[in-house]
Amino acid sequence: MKIGIVTGIPGVGKSTVLAKVKEILDNQGINNKIINYGDFMLATALKLGYAKDRDEMRKLSVEKQKKLQIDAAKGIAEEARAGGEGYLFIDTHAVIRTPSGYLPGLPSYVITEINPSVIFLLEADPKIILSRQKRDTTRNRNDYSDESVILETINFARYAATASAVLAGSTVKVIVNVEGDPSIAANEIIRSMK
Amino acid sequence: MKIGIVTGIPGVGKSTVLAKVKEILDNQGINNKIINYGDFMLATALKLGYAKDRDEMRKLSVEKQKKLQIDAAKGIAEEARAGGEGYLFIDTHAVIRTPSGYLPGLPSYVITEINPSVIFLLEADPKIILSRQKRDTTRNRNDYSDESVILETINFARYAATASAVLAGSTVKVIVNVEGDPSIAANEIIRSMK
Amino acid sequence: MKIGIVTGIPGVGKSTVLAKVKEILDNQGINNKIINYGDFMLATALKLGYAKDRDEMRKLSVEKQKKLQIDAAKGIAEEARAGGEGYLFIDTHAVIRTPSGYLPGLPSYVITEINPSVIFLLEADPKIILSRQKRDTTRNRNDYSDESVILETINFARYAATASAVLAGSTVKVIVNVEGDPSIAANEIIRSMK
Repeated sequence: MKIGIVTGIPGVGKSTVLAKVKEILDNQGINNKIINYGDFMLATALKLGYAKDRDEMRKLSVEKQKKLQIDAAKGIAEEARAGGEGYLFIDTHAVIRTPSGYLPGLPSYVITEINPSVIFLLEADPKIILSRQKRDTTRNRNDYSDESVILETINFARYAATASAVLAGSTVKVIVNVEGDPSIAANEIIRSMK
Repeated sequence: MKIGIVTGIPGVGKSTVLAKVKEILDNQGINNKIINYGDFMLATALKLGYAKDRDEMRKLSVEKQKKLQIDAAKGIAEEARAGGEGYLFIDTHAVIRTPSGYLPGLPSYVITEINPSVIFLLEADPKIILSRQKRDTTRNRNDYSDESVILETINFARYAATASAVLAGSTVKVIVNVEGDPSIAANEIIRSMK
Repeated sequence: MKIGIVTGIPGVGKSTVLAKVKEILDNQGINNKIINYGDFMLATALKLGYAKDRDEMRKLSVEKQKKLQIDAAKGIAEEARAGGEGYLFIDTHAVIRTPSGYLPGLPSYVITEINPSVIFLLEADPKIILSRQKRDTTRNRNDYSDESVILETINFARYAATASAVLAGSTVKVIVNVEGDPSIAANEIIRSMK
């Protein structure tokens, strides 16, 4: 399977767009798989006995977390190899905004294992992202509290994704998630994989 | 020979500036060579029997193309070593705008073979680039159709060139191609190599 | 010791902020060390017999300088390992503006030896940086002569620091040095290390 990594900051509408990608490809009878990188890391942690749940996983030492990230990346690459024709999309972040700064979601040791064809940057107007974050009260998203912070995060995501692309030789594709119609972004993602 | 990589998006005037660089150095009796990376890749493909022409080269598998890129990079580095004193300039792109996104022209496996002293970013006002692209009807340049697209490409070229420079320890130099006088940019390129 | 790399362009107030960081941590009885990367390189050059003073060090061949950079990076990593608990801060640059372009201060072969937890980008309003540079007549800072040059340098520092962070898996943290109170930036740096 060809691998596309779909990144985007919280509130950009990534889950909705990826669900649409799956729907479109399923309707066309095209083999596809969507993998959430965080979920896959947890499954890998459980399988290898690193942790018993998400909380334990988060408390692992930096070294263990790094090893886990690499094991998960290898696992995903193996799924793509074993999966035959079609597309495998990874749902993750180019950077994660933490109290210690922007953490790259695709550091060298991860991106060189996955070796994707395309790294997508799903973007939207900071105003729209902010209003989506405010509506979504189920998640703790207080790290992104104003437009300038969102714009800075989008910019660092671009720098980080490009650095990862230079390491792997992948393309970097900016996709705008148009408010009200996630199928526009979904179709553009699919077209970019061909 | 010291190696400088000269990058710039279509319409910025790269060929004209590099011809001027050659003219100035020839007049000063300084040993120099300008290599177009795409042409060198084709020559390498023909020599190694990967392809019989440019069309066949473009249809090679991703793996073969990557091998070809590396072989070409090694070939250029070898020419620089064998060339004695003076300057070798490589005419290429920091990113190429494709339907699948921005493709890095200097990915890790290329930049670490070439190990240039300087990566140049030849830039110009998006308005001027757009009007030059419109005048040049001999090439298919419809990928860059408005100013905001040109500006985005220039920005991603900066991110990608900087990532490549971090890998190789090269400098990144922005050069403005002033409309009407390519010798200004040419002289600045030569000065930056010293 | 956990390692934080503190970068910032000349005039941003890096030395003052780092002195404040030291003062705060000393007052709290927390083990800490501030290492200036350039000074550490010189000490390494003297110890290994590469050069007898700073002038000789600057005239070393590119290859020797690279080896020296790596030796210094290894030396600092060794100090951190031997230093027990606490924080080690490295005072350096994400990019250095030279006549040949922006030179990355944390190229691949340096950042992978140091492996910092956080790379800090100490920033300030270009206007303020410019006025600080003008007041400081003891140093030759004529490379940064107007606001647009300072802004461009700040931007390339962001791209380069992010590329280095992608290589090492470090976070990148933007810290604003508020005019008149370096303790704000100092406290934020300390908080980000936890």
